[in-house]
This record gives sequence, C-alpha cells and structure tokens, in this order.
Amino acid sequence: MNFFISDTDGTARNGTVETARGQVSTPAFMPVGTQGTVKALSPEELVSMGAEIILSNTYHLYLRPGHEIIRSIGGLHTFMNWDRPILTDSGGFQVFSLASLRKIREDGVEFRSHIDGSLHFLGPEKAMEVQVALGTDIAMAFDECTPYPCDYEYAVKSLELTTRWAQRCKSYLDSETQGSKRPALFGIVQGGMYKDLRARSLAELSRIGFDGYAVGGLSVGEPKEEMYDVIRFIAPLMPAESSRYLMGVGDLMDVLVAVENGFDMFDCVMPTRNARNGTLFTSRGRISIKRTEFKSDAGPLDPDCSCNTCRNYSLAYLRHLFLAKEILSMRLNTVHNLHFYLNFFKNMRAAIHNKTFSAFKEHWEGVLGSATQ
Amino acid sequence: MNFFISDTDGTARNGTVETARGQVSTPAFMPVGTQGTVKALSPEELVSMGAEIILSNTYHLYLRPGHEIIRSIGGLHTFMNWDRPILTDSGGFQVFSLASLRKIREDGVEFRSHIDGSLHFLGPEKAMEVQVALGTDIAMAFDECTPYPCDYEYAVKSLELTTRWAQRCKSYLDSETQGSKRPALFGIVQGGMYKDLRARSLAELSRIGFDGYAVGGLSVGEPKEEMYDVIRFIAPLMPAESSRYLMGVGDLMDVLVAVENGFDMFDCVMPTRNARNGTLFTSRGRISIKRTEFKSDAGPLDPDCSCNTCRNYSLAYLRHLFLAKEILSMRLNTVHNLHFYLNFFKNMRAAIHNKTFSAFKEHWEGVLGSATQ
Repeated sequence: MNFFISDTDGTARNGTVETARGQVSTPAFMPVGTQGTVKALSPEELVSMGAEIILSNTYHLYLRPGHEIIRSIGGLHTFMNWDRPILTDSGGFQVFSLASLRKIREDGVEFRSHIDGSLHFLGPEKAMEVQVALGTDIAMAFDECTPYPCDYEYAVKSLELTTRWAQRCKSYLDSETQGSKRPALFGIVQGGMYKDLRARSLAELSRIGFDGYAVGGLSVGEPKEEMYDVIRFIAPLMPAESSRYLMGVGDLMDVLVAVENGFDMFDCVMPTRNARNGTLFTSRGRISIKRTEFKSDAGPLDPDCSCNTCRNYSLAYLRHLFLAKEILSMRLNTVHNLHFYLNFFKNMRAAIHNKTFSAFKEHWEGVLGSATQ
Repeated sequence: MNFFISDTDGTARNGTVETARGQVSTPAFMPVGTQGTVKALSPEELVSMGAEIILSNTYHLYLRPGHEIIRSIGGLHTFMNWDRPILTDSGGFQVFSLASLRKIREDGVEFRSHIDGSLHFLGPEKAMEVQVALGTDIAMAFDECTPYPCDYEYAVKSLELTTRWAQRCKSYLDSETQGSKRPALFGIVQGGMYKDLRARSLAELSRIGFDGYAVGGLSVGEPKEEMYDVIRFIAPLMPAESSRYLMGVGDLMDVLVAVENGFDMFDCVMPTRNARNGTLFTSRGRISIKRTEFKSDAGPLDPDCSCNTCRNYSLAYLRHLFLAKEILSMRLNTVHNLHFYLNFFKNMRAAIHNKTFSAFKEHWEGVLGSATQ
C-alpha cells in the first residue's frame, strides 16, 4: 500500500491510503465487522453511506467459521460480498480480553475459545497465516495489549515481547507471501501509559520498518487526560510519511484530539453498538430513542441528516421499533449512526483542507460535550 | 376497492384487487408486518421483491404504539414508509390467541395485554375505529375465531355473534366514514369444522354484503384433510365476483389446494418466521441452513433463485451468519424466503394464465412433499 498526504492544518492532515482494492481518504473511520459482517448492515448499505474500508476481527473469524473455510470460499471479501479494502486486527486484543485461561509463551498465546471453551493457539506466525488466508489488505502485527493499570516492569517485558512478535510477523510475510498475496503490515506501539516505553516501542518498530504504525492499548479504562497525554506525546514521534492508526478509539471527542495531533485511521464499535442500544448521534448531540417525548413526534431524528433513516422515518416510528424490539430498529439506527460518523469524518477532512480544523473541533466539542438527552 | 377476474383454469383464477393505493395481482401472498414492519426487512426491499400488499395487525398496533399515535403521524403508511396497499386484520384472532383473561360480551371482548397485562377492550366498533385510524386499505370485520376442537353448540353461538359483529362493523363504517376515509371491508366466515355452520355463516355475511369474503378459523391445529374438506366445501359457495381470502394459511401445499378451489388472497408468517429460524425454501425443497455439509459450500442457497441473497452470498456464509447469530442472517434469510414465496405466487398466476395450473400443482407437491433436508 501507499500513503500520501494531501493537506495539512497544523499537525492535522488529510491523506490517501492506496491499496490494490481501492483508496481510503484519511482521516478515516473504519466500521467494525467483527464476524465478517458490520452488525445489522448489508455491504450495499455500507457502500451507499460511503464506507471505504472496514475492519474485521482475526480472533473471531479464526474461531468461527475458521480461516481455512474462508480461504476456500475465496477469501473474506468474497465471503462477505465486500470488494473494498479490509483491515484485520491481529487477534491479540481479543485473546487478552475475550478468551480465558491464557498462557503467554515466547511464540504466542494458548487460550480457550469464548464460544465453546476449546483450546487454541495464536502467535505472530499464526496470526499472519490467518490474516493472509482471509485475504486482508492491511494486516496488524500480533501484539500483547497491556491492561490498565499495568506496572512498569510488566509493561517493559510486554513491549519487548510485542517487538519480537512484530519482527516475527514481518519475517513471516517476507518468507511466506509475495506479490498481491502480501498484505500491508502495521506495527502496534504498546508501553501502557509510560511515555518512555511508548517512545521505545515506537523506536524499535521503526527500526524493523512497517507500512504503517498503530497505537494500541489506549481507551482501555484509563482517564481521558492520560490517554490524551499519550496521544500528544507519541504522535509527533511517529514517522510523518506513514499512516498512523489509533486502535479502538472512536469517541468523537477523542478522535478530534487524535486528528489534531496527526492520527489518520480509527475504528470503534461505538456507532454500531450504540445504535443497537438506542443511543443515536445527531448534529445536536446524543439522543436516547426511548424518550417519552418522541412518542408522537412526526419529525426526523436529525433534520440536518441526509441518511435513509432521517429521510424516511419519524422519531415516533424509531421509538416504536426500538420498544417493540424489531430488527428494523437496529438496522435504521445503525444506518443513521454510521452515516453520522462517516459524514463527520468527511466534514473533518473538508475542514483540514480549508484550514478550519480548529473551528470544526471547537464546534463539535460543544455539541458532543452535552450529555445524552 | 374493485375486484376483477382475468383468467381461470378450472376453478383456479387470476384477478386484480384495485385500491386507491394500487393494484394487487391475485392469487396474492401478503407478507405479515405485525408491528408495522415486516420483520428484518425494509419497505424498499419489499418493493424490490415485488410485494404489492402487506398485512398488519390491529391488536398489536392498538396496544403499541397505539392507533391514535399512528393516526397523528399520518397513518400507518406514512408511519412505516410503505405506500402500497395494507390489509389489517381485526384483532379478533390475537385477542383469542395472545391476550389473557378474556371476557366475551355482546359488544366485544375485554382482555389483558400480552405486553404489560393492562386491561383493554376490542369490539366491532372499536376494531373499526382502530383500523380507520391506521388508514388501512382493507379492513377485516371483528370476529371470534373458534378454537379446534370446538363443540357444535359453541360453534353455533360463536358464528351468530360473529355475524352480529360483522353487521355492526359495516354499520360503523356506513355512519362514521365516507369517501377516501372508508376502507374496503371483508367479512370473515367462521363455523369451525362444521360444514353446515360454514355455509350458514357465509350466507349470513353475504346477506349483509361485504367487499370481500374471508375464511377464518382454519390452520388452527386441525388435521390437513379436515381443513381441505372445509376449503373444498366453502369455496364454490362464496360469491364468485368477490375476492376470497383464506386467513393465516401459508403452507404452500395448503395454498395449492386453496387456489385450485378458487381462493385469491393469503397471509402467513411462515416464510419470515422460518427464515429467522434458519429454515429456507428452495426450488428443491426446504433446507436447514445449519447443516454441517454447508460449512464450506461456496455455492448459492438456490441456484435457480434470483434474489439478492442467492446472487451474492454462499451457503457457507449464510450458515456462518446463522451460527454466529448475526442480524444479517435474519435479513438475508428473510429476503430469500419472501422472494421465494412471491415468486411462487407469480409463477402460479402464470400457470393459471397458461391453463397449466394442474401441472404446476403436481410439480410443487412433489418438491414440497419432501422432508426438510
């Protein structure tokens, strides 16, 4: 893959990630399709709302249906009927957050499936093998995501392991793949909330050399200011010519801080999960669709929104579908929230292009700072 | 509304129901949108698969969100973003099957909501008031649906009450509605499995005069042959120039018998409910999508089907989505099953037009008679 920067506004930047399956404008939001589907949506809907790339989860697809099955069908793109770029995570985060009875070894992690308790193993080589079988466009190196809080000594040992694993991931791709079969590979900066360890992790990964650099281990329970400190510290140290991906961070307040500091790529389940729970993002702040005052409100969820949901359905109908637990509720809410997110990113790119990012940030901090109504 | 017959093949017939909101080709299948949405589907999808009319449930919408709310939004069509015809049932069937603590009186039924136990009342006038508030195109008279089995004496008293209620429904519409606010009204033939009572019920309703005639109280647990006996007995007695609606019967084997005997309209949750449970209809019989042999099958669910699901997704993917309990599973399965049903009806109309209905019936009895694979 290639990455070009087209505009800057301070340290915020617009760019383009070029892959064999198409271009992605950055700053980019990647909807999450954990099990080979962005929950509640069809691929056609994702295309129509302008999604240029999605993220899918190696851990989940490895366990079910299994990467060999997906390979035999023609890869994840064919399997899920999505021909635009896909980024797959490494499975590391899920092994450490979902699986049980983990045993960390030098060559990887033994764990039990959260689905059926069966015994499995993922390590750098296996995580690469799985991602290559899926036919991903951008693979993530296998890492250990340290929890919060985490003592200094553990964070050191963990980041050293993550560096060795990152090297093994790159070596695997060097020896086992070539040409169009070789995905781009991003290294993942760890180091907990310790700035010196973050810098060290980044330096070690940069020496190995990756197609892009991600920051993991944030938004794992730490106070916002600690996260912002790490973001502000690490961003300027990251190679300017490579794309910078802030993993799992999708609260738009956090996105604004990260983009201001030069991050390019984001993923988060927030818009889709919130949609299913009835929390909707609008140009005037967050709304709970359950509110009694929407009972007979014939108006749209967000009069400023051009999504299919806002153009065709009333607040009263959305409230009814949610209370009646109808599947269409999850569909219409997800369409709206993802449209809102993708539109937010589009407008943010326009603001960077027009050198008005500060005003954009200030406006949205005001809107997003208000409590859910 | 108007009803015209265009073709006949024996006693099977093709026709057109004309309403102010559009035409419906008969024999017609009406997808069921119980709570103001056909479960898992958008109205756009229903249109794209050729649905010309849907059924919605008075009982459910009366309880939640309430007919007055729907009226205030502009009626059910606006509420759910569906501008084609809607037939609403009377609420009678649900009062007798879902609600609890029923008290039947001359003027209606007192019952407790299956949602929250609250006390409610539906009778002929109220059922009409609700259906008019919803803005239905075809209203059903309020009836008592007798259970199976049901003794003769009870069936007599029940059908007499149903006749009196049917008269009250018509009188209500005569005095309370006019012009475009007045929906078509169908009477419902009851009488259990007693042919003489069925004939009497039909005769009494015919004397009152309705826009169409429905047969209720079938497919309520009786043996198939008993149901077929009633169908074969009652159809030729029904006014030939009016549309004939067999309520709640949607097993395609039963539909074939009913169409052969001159029925025109059908509704059933079978295609949508089965879809959500992973049972899919194909040109080669029913399939359970869970089957292990589909694990890595790259082929479509039904190679003879042109629906969005069969054109874009493999059996392996459909199986994966179902096992992973993904919402898209319910969507893709429902798209397929409803497409299959609507296409079955389209081909059945073509067979009647070409006077080949017997061959059509024989072919499908062979396919449908095989057990679920």
